[in-house]
Amino acid sequence: MYTTEELILKIEIRLAAIPLNKEPDKLYDPISYTLSLGGKRMRPLLTLMACDMFGGNPEDAIEAAIGLELFHNFTLLHDDIMDNAPLRRGRPTVHIKWNPNNAILSGDTMFALAYRCIANTSSRHLKKTLDLFTKTAIEVCEGQQYDMDFELRQDVTIPEYIEMIRLKTAVLPAAALKIGAIVAGANPMDAENIYRFGENIGIAFQLKDDLLDAFGAEELFGKVTGGDIAANKKTFLYLKSIEKANESDRKKLLEYYKTGSDDKDAKVRKVIEIYKKLDIEIITEKEIEQYYQASLGFLNRIPEKTGDKSILYGFIESLMNRDY
Amino acid sequence: MYTTEELILKIEIRLAAIPLNKEPDKLYDPISYTLSLGGKRMRPLLTLMACDMFGGNPEDAIEAAIGLELFHNFTLLHDDIMDNAPLRRGRPTVHIKWNPNNAILSGDTMFALAYRCIANTSSRHLKKTLDLFTKTAIEVCEGQQYDMDFELRQDVTIPEYIEMIRLKTAVLPAAALKIGAIVAGANPMDAENIYRFGENIGIAFQLKDDLLDAFGAEELFGKVTGGDIAANKKTFLYLKSIEKANESDRKKLLEYYKTGSDDKDAKVRKVIEIYKKLDIEIITEKEIEQYYQASLGFLNRIPEKTGDKSILYGFIESLMNRDY
Repeated sequence: MYTTEELILKIEIRLAAIPLNKEPDKLYDPISYTLSLGGKRMRPLLTLMACDMFGGNPEDAIEAAIGLELFHNFTLLHDDIMDNAPLRRGRPTVHIKWNPNNAILSGDTMFALAYRCIANTSSRHLKKTLDLFTKTAIEVCEGQQYDMDFELRQDVTIPEYIEMIRLKTAVLPAAALKIGAIVAGANPMDAENIYRFGENIGIAFQLKDDLLDAFGAEELFGKVTGGDIAANKKTFLYLKSIEKANESDRKKLLEYYKTGSDDKDAKVRKVIEIYKKLDIEIITEKEIEQYYQASLGFLNRIPEKTGDKSILYGFIESLMNRDY
Repeated sequence: MYTTEELILKIEIRLAAIPLNKEPDKLYDPISYTLSLGGKRMRPLLTLMACDMFGGNPEDAIEAAIGLELFHNFTLLHDDIMDNAPLRRGRPTVHIKWNPNNAILSGDTMFALAYRCIANTSSRHLKKTLDLFTKTAIEVCEGQQYDMDFELRQDVTIPEYIEMIRLKTAVLPAAALKIGAIVAGANPMDAENIYRFGENIGIAFQLKDDLLDAFGAEELFGKVTGGDIAANKKTFLYLKSIEKANESDRKKLLEYYKTGSDDKDAKVRKVIEIYKKLDIEIITEKEIEQYYQASLGFLNRIPEKTGDKSILYGFIESLMNRDY
């Protein structure tokens, strides 16, 4: 078994080897830039961990893993245009540093480069890997569309929100894990269980993100606390509050979420006050715990003899227990 | 051998069977809309023709053919955002009818749907088809980037322009033909020759488009004559004129190409006057003929016993001899 650090190193070495010092530079520079912004490399790491766990050689999964990382970064690039986001990991976004056209086209190229890596999967596992990757890519697009649709809707339900984050954020780590399993030659039931594990843990992660956005310490999280509230994002916390609030608080919430960002700090403070009054922090933690337990249920279904699950457990726990 | 009409019918039937009546509708409606705008279906047709010609069953190439048509339409969708084009085939573009975010995301989804079709190629030919498709997709993006770069450059050379149109428009029909050959199990040399045939004929087509934009009759061509001139597009005609013009005319051309569209009709008329004075129409026709002959040279290298090239000859000739 490899350590997390060993796997991360493999990923960074392979990422650095993608030939991007190419013409036309306005096409390739934004791709280098995006990859250089870093990130946890969670998705490729999950692929290599799963491959290792199921007795495969992580080297055989590295191309697909890199494909997933390229795809993830492509979605960030295009999402940032759509969300008109000025910053990504504290640095100017591509559509700001270059322009929206460059961001569109470099993103498209990155998507194709992702497929170039996926296509390097050994022929025995190519079709399965490719089909899962494409299915996932389409679902991620669907999730992003629902997210944009929800901005304009006042009647979003919690199940709809959960389905949106499942598509937008959870199916990709789930597919990352399953692709590792596929390349390792895992049996279909184990591969399905690792997928369901990833899907549930992915939803738990996103809910944790939502929670930290409102209740995390700004200096640790690296994001402005309350960013979701300032942007009128209808997160689990907001939707649950709307559901639980009395008539007066509900009206206030709806009113706050109509306004722009002039009175950002005051608005964030007032919304969080209502969250606190309604015990939303505790309710969200319970919801997270449910998805976390569900995910562990799927992981536990994979027989111990199959492989050592300890690294995966450790990685997941470190992500779940973060407070930033 | 199938007739062109029979092959077109296969393509339209398969296109109509793509499940697009799906949620979220803002994601899928723009895709249906784009495909419903029609077009010549040239790329999938070339795939099926090549497959047929090399003794394959066009049914085995239909998925890849549809993948190429989806990819082509995806590039149009994103190009229209980048070019800020209001119309496509006489109808509002997606970024106008919906909005730019929808156009970005529906385009991304279309790209993934293209890969879904490509992935349905039989496993024997999958890797080759996939690699050629991805290589081509990246080249098309490079071509679009060069096209945008050239808008800002005053020193574009004719070889640079030819390389740009090779990437932006010629490699896709070339790949379409070669994928048909691959699926038919053609030998690698024949597959390469059909690719080179497509590449050269693709450049000839684009030069013909450039020519018709300046010298075609508007009512036949369906586009405003002189659209390239109005948009300051540095086409072969323009670049050749800059090269051949005397000092005074060269200055005039450079001046005309600095201006916006206030004086569009006058500007188009004046530029075309210079083109006429310099025999640009004849020079361009000669250039087209060179690429046309080069393409036939590659087609002729494919032994007659390999298959009946007559449909391909006929199709190409009809496209070359169009005057709209």
